[in-house]
Amino acid sequence: MPKEIKPWKTLRSELVFDHKWYKLRRDHVTLPNGRVLDDYFVSVRPNVVLIFALTTTDEVLFVRQYKHAAGQILLELPGGIMDEGETLPLEAAKRELLEETGHTSDEIELLQSVIDNPTKDTNTIYFFLARNAQQVAAQDLDETEEIEVVKVPLNQVEAQIQAGNIRVSGSVALCLLAMSKLRQVIIPPPPPADVDEAIEP
Amino acid sequence: MPKEIKPWKTLRSELVFDHKWYKLRRDHVTLPNGRVLDDYFVSVRPNVVLIFALTTTDEVLFVRQYKHAAGQILLELPGGIMDEGETLPLEAAKRELLEETGHTSDEIELLQSVIDNPTKDTNTIYFFLARNAQQVAAQDLDETEEIEVVKVPLNQVEAQIQAGNIRVSGSVALCLLAMSKLRQVIIPPPPPADVDEAIEP
Repeated sequence: MPKEIKPWKTLRSELVFDHKWYKLRRDHVTLPNGRVLDDYFVSVRPNVVLIFALTTTDEVLFVRQYKHAAGQILLELPGGIMDEGETLPLEAAKRELLEETGHTSDEIELLQSVIDNPTKDTNTIYFFLARNAQQVAAQDLDETEEIEVVKVPLNQVEAQIQAGNIRVSGSVALCLLAMSKLRQVIIPPPPPADVDEAIEP
Repeated sequence: MPKEIKPWKTLRSELVFDHKWYKLRRDHVTLPNGRVLDDYFVSVRPNVVLIFALTTTDEVLFVRQYKHAAGQILLELPGGIMDEGETLPLEAAKRELLEETGHTSDEIELLQSVIDNPTKDTNTIYFFLARNAQQVAAQDLDETEEIEVVKVPLNQVEAQIQAGNIRVSGSVALCLLAMSKLRQVIIPPPPPADVDEAIEP
């Protein structure tokens, strides 16, 4: 008999830290067992787009940059936060792909929307697959951005993940999801093993 | 000619919000171009473990629970934050698996350590693969936890991801990584297409 999982009730909320670059909310909540918590903290974050872009020569576009919270130089898929007033994830994905890599694609689709950290953060990440990506411009970066574009042949992406060279959660998830989707299209799966048996009398 | 990507230099840091359940750091940094930022915010978070546990009957253990920042009831792999003083991710993984699902495994290995959000958060997620997981106890939950254990047959996990029923970034990444690893072991890949051709004169 499955347990009935119930949501919490929010009694009230206040922003305890409210800066242009960081908003932290404190929620007072009631749990299903009646217990009240008055110190549940939630980081209010803008939604994010991430793009697995495959070029016409079967290379995947990555960006290499310093990320300050991790304190490391990392290889990730291109992407970024949706601008204020930007309501369509697809538009944000096209903009980020163009700004960070100078590439565009007219074959771009939403693969999945995932949650980054459902315990602490409010934001969604929209995962896109772009095919036939082609360079149409130079990078167009903010003053605080230093980004190297790295093209990885499609058939080497999984090895780069296994080796730990691609090691940011969202990029790992989207790379593997996108490659699974591409395999479904490019390589039709073999017929199920029981098809031949079904034909037999 | 690849760009030389350089790390930022931290001039000084202070905790601008310092609560048992949330620590927010403000860094004053110098960028490689010499520009100084005095308001780079970093969420200081404990490291996390996440476990893909396969039972002796080829089912994968999931947990279904309400997550307040997302405001949703979600299906995820079992896991949680490392306790203070808990230095070995493996020990934390065994503890979380036991507490949340009542299962244990003596065949548990670190698959990868990934970064959740390198822009905003300091923490690492340790991804584990556990085989031959067996139930040895009941769940042992905190007062604030309500968790349903859900067993998903291994061959249905990818479909559950494609359908969006498993949609937390870390769980998606670890499921696909673990299944890739299991395929390498359980199902030997077919010989490359050019082997037969090579035998031909």
